[in-house]
Amino acid sequence: MISKNQQKLINGLKLKKNRLKSELFIAEGEKVVNELINSSLVLHSLYFTSDYQAVKDLESSKLHQIEDADLKKISNLVTPNKVLALFEIPKMEFSYTDDDLILALDDIRDPGNLGTIIRVADWFGIKNILCSSNTVDAFNPKVVMSTMGSIARVNLIYKDLLSSLDEIDLPKFGTFLEGDNIYREKLPKGAVVIIGNESNGISSEVEKLVDRKINIPQFGDVQNTESLNAAVATAITISQFKSR
Amino acid sequence: MISKNQQKLINGLKLKKNRLKSELFIAEGEKVVNELINSSLVLHSLYFTSDYQAVKDLESSKLHQIEDADLKKISNLVTPNKVLALFEIPKMEFSYTDDDLILALDDIRDPGNLGTIIRVADWFGIKNILCSSNTVDAFNPKVVMSTMGSIARVNLIYKDLLSSLDEIDLPKFGTFLEGDNIYREKLPKGAVVIIGNESNGISSEVEKLVDRKINIPQFGDVQNTESLNAAVATAITISQFKSR
Repeated sequence: MISKNQQKLINGLKLKKNRLKSELFIAEGEKVVNELINSSLVLHSLYFTSDYQAVKDLESSKLHQIEDADLKKISNLVTPNKVLALFEIPKMEFSYTDDDLILALDDIRDPGNLGTIIRVADWFGIKNILCSSNTVDAFNPKVVMSTMGSIARVNLIYKDLLSSLDEIDLPKFGTFLEGDNIYREKLPKGAVVIIGNESNGISSEVEKLVDRKINIPQFGDVQNTESLNAAVATAITISQFKSR
Repeated sequence: MISKNQQKLINGLKLKKNRLKSELFIAEGEKVVNELINSSLVLHSLYFTSDYQAVKDLESSKLHQIEDADLKKISNLVTPNKVLALFEIPKMEFSYTDDDLILALDDIRDPGNLGTIIRVADWFGIKNILCSSNTVDAFNPKVVMSTMGSIARVNLIYKDLLSSLDEIDLPKFGTFLEGDNIYREKLPKGAVVIIGNESNGISSEVEKLVDRKINIPQFGDVQNTESLNAAVATAITISQFKSR
């Protein structure tokens, strides 16, 4: 059974303002939910159908077995998948060492791109992602789905990007068309890598804080080729920093 | 005006079997269509609403001005965007030199991943992508949309992958968990890079043809992190080959 109030709470969490107020977010599907249960995140409540098997013992007061039809009412998926859980949005504490690579996102708007970027950061052991206030919310259900659990292992700090960057005493790299060939550059261990918006790139205010402009060179038909997708450009750039 | 027959033809092209039979595919939206009109592809017909401006003079017999409501009937998009065009599927001719990098896809299934891979290949000047017969069709409308025009500049050869690979006299690299660190490997200019399926990786039959196993090392929490998305892994691997 699922009460009207529970339904209202869950469906409300599709909106950022409600997530901020309640400090909760939605995760869906067996794989993602099980991974988050096993992470450091705090489970708030779990709604599951009869064919779901929890990965570990959970406080019974948080568990709600429901019918398939009820799961449909609260799910964001076309085909709901056994379980939907609410977790507390973790308090993000920003700390770094001189050897850390930090990612900074200047208005990434596409949830799929942000999800891929978070997975890439996790793969390469990046602990902190600074997000401009206009970057899509990482606790948006679509982003949570596409991070595949990585969201529990990376700090996402939403704040005015100019002041975030200003406080960090590491060289700041940004990708620009006119930047130097990243394959020929000396890249330090500790740095901030700034990724621009999908359409407009890095904003002119943020550009002023960039110490070194870099570029992923193009080998194809230079006139026609579309720019690289933001998540792909992020992956290639981080890979270069980590390969040295 | 759009006739019932035209509607039937266009809507039929959402299916691969009809694309193969008629040798036509659908492109939608101003940006992609204009880019393909300016490419080497042969336009078959163009359906546009009054607010569309063609990028160059086109044979008038191929042009069909239609109403917004008609565009809705043939569009695959939630919000149709001014124009839908049919192009001939190009005859792909496979040729390569000893210095070429060739991409081989062993059952990539996700249209978005294939689209991103085609864009990445185009960026890095890769001319040929060998696709296993079970790889998602590149002329699927979703793939065409996500390639942003790159599809006109890359040869996509669908064929039994074992026989395709067998005919190529270049070293064959594949990514495997147990492979050698790609950042420490000597990578030749001419090579085939094999990318495995999203869930299962490279199949055991194809594995037998691999000369060198490589791996993108993981820096994060090795126990928990999800593997890299197939398109991201492709981008990082190709970038490494091109950076030397």
